[in-house]
Amino acid sequence: VEDRYGGVIVDDAMFDAEELLGGDPVAFARALDGSVETWRARGTRGVWLKVALERAAHVPVATSRGFVFHHAEKEYVMLTKWLPEDEASTIPANASHQVGVGAFVLDKETRRVLLVQELRGPAANRDLWKMPTGLLEAGEDVPIAAMREVMEETGIDTEFDTVIGCRHAHVGAFGKSDLFFCVGLVVKDGASREISIQPQEIAKAKWATMEEFLDNPHIEPGSHAWALHALCEKWANDEYAGIRANKLPLGFGRPGEVYTYVAHE
Amino acid sequence: VEDRYGGVIVDDAMFDAEELLGGDPVAFARALDGSVETWRARGTRGVWLKVALERAAHVPVATSRGFVFHHAEKEYVMLTKWLPEDEASTIPANASHQVGVGAFVLDKETRRVLLVQELRGPAANRDLWKMPTGLLEAGEDVPIAAMREVMEETGIDTEFDTVIGCRHAHVGAFGKSDLFFCVGLVVKDGASREISIQPQEIAKAKWATMEEFLDNPHIEPGSHAWALHALCEKWANDEYAGIRANKLPLGFGRPGEVYTYVAHE
Repeated sequence: VEDRYGGVIVDDAMFDAEELLGGDPVAFARALDGSVETWRARGTRGVWLKVALERAAHVPVATSRGFVFHHAEKEYVMLTKWLPEDEASTIPANASHQVGVGAFVLDKETRRVLLVQELRGPAANRDLWKMPTGLLEAGEDVPIAAMREVMEETGIDTEFDTVIGCRHAHVGAFGKSDLFFCVGLVVKDGASREISIQPQEIAKAKWATMEEFLDNPHIEPGSHAWALHALCEKWANDEYAGIRANKLPLGFGRPGEVYTYVAHE
Repeated sequence: VEDRYGGVIVDDAMFDAEELLGGDPVAFARALDGSVETWRARGTRGVWLKVALERAAHVPVATSRGFVFHHAEKEYVMLTKWLPEDEASTIPANASHQVGVGAFVLDKETRRVLLVQELRGPAANRDLWKMPTGLLEAGEDVPIAAMREVMEETGIDTEFDTVIGCRHAHVGAFGKSDLFFCVGLVVKDGASREISIQPQEIAKAKWATMEEFLDNPHIEPGSHAWALHALCEKWANDEYAGIRANKLPLGFGRPGEVYTYVAHE
């Protein structure tokens, strides 16, 4: 498969299909060396090699031929080799970010907000009452993720209203960065306010007053969380419009829609 | 190393230091089997195993013991094994996003904007004039990345003004998603307007009129790019304030500052 950068995507499964390899690292080494020569002669620049989990024996064969890791998912690892010796690699970077959501859930009837205590992780054991949070799943959008996390953690059915703000921090796991979207949600009309916690992740949950929410000893005055909390209150009081989430066509001839976040005008 | 989720981070380098292994996969297999038993007996839940590129021979040993890939960077691959048999894994997800920037650069004196044509990639060969774009580097913030890309691609020295909008799309490489921040920059006071292109990436660059920028046959009316282009024009005309980028203390007892993006109030 020729990729759009003029490289070659070599999928381990393709070798299987062509019955070149079987499970034998020696045959794989022979095939790989031959292929690299062919690609080099053709002027191929970047070579991509996807090795399935069950073919992990091919990994040391590839690294001994100068392949380096690019990224991995549970079931495979992707390796790359940049062939031109007189040119810097233009192999695109690996994913660099996790994206999280925090859901500020307002019950407009009672003016109460939904807070949880986590069972594990850095926030546990600190008596920290916080808004429900979580990471986006693959392919998921911010408003959807916020509503899903609230449903999973507390059983409350909500509707998306606005993005209140977004924080960009370089403190994620494994040297990655994270983007955290703080989202304003309202309880769905007629939905139950009865909380049903997710016992694997959540120790406690409650409806709190705005005063309880704001009077949080873990939130340092002037910090980003303090600034977002203040905007949460303003939003709850209809004094802050937040950031709009518009679903718009992707464009450039490609099908599908994407969320575009812009300020209210 | 006990991690904050109650797992164990097993760094390949630690085995080296303890002279348990050398480069021998057989000794590694023995040490790994013994360690997994110890961790299981201790009630350890998630085990992390970081294998350096030069020790790739350990990868098939680990996968044959039920380890799966988690993520990889050029110089290592991280594998994990979840030990509890009666409980779902809480091992956190791999990074899921790339974050890109597009820089809408306005020369306030001439009312012209900076456009480029790329040498490679999906936008090349389509006569597409576009704003300079690029991916965030590890640990980099959006305003900094935008100014860096403009400097690299065109040699123009700019100042950050606002985030115009942000698009979230699930069309990235390798099944990852991407977040694209469209940023409004102005040419720095007194800086040269003379363009010096980066010949490895950029085919052409020019100062265009606002009409040229907006009259783009590749931008489908109603699409997200069309919406962002319209906001770029409004911002250039001082009719749109955009999204503020505030640098605020990280908080929660952690040092450092983070960018927090919120709407103008």
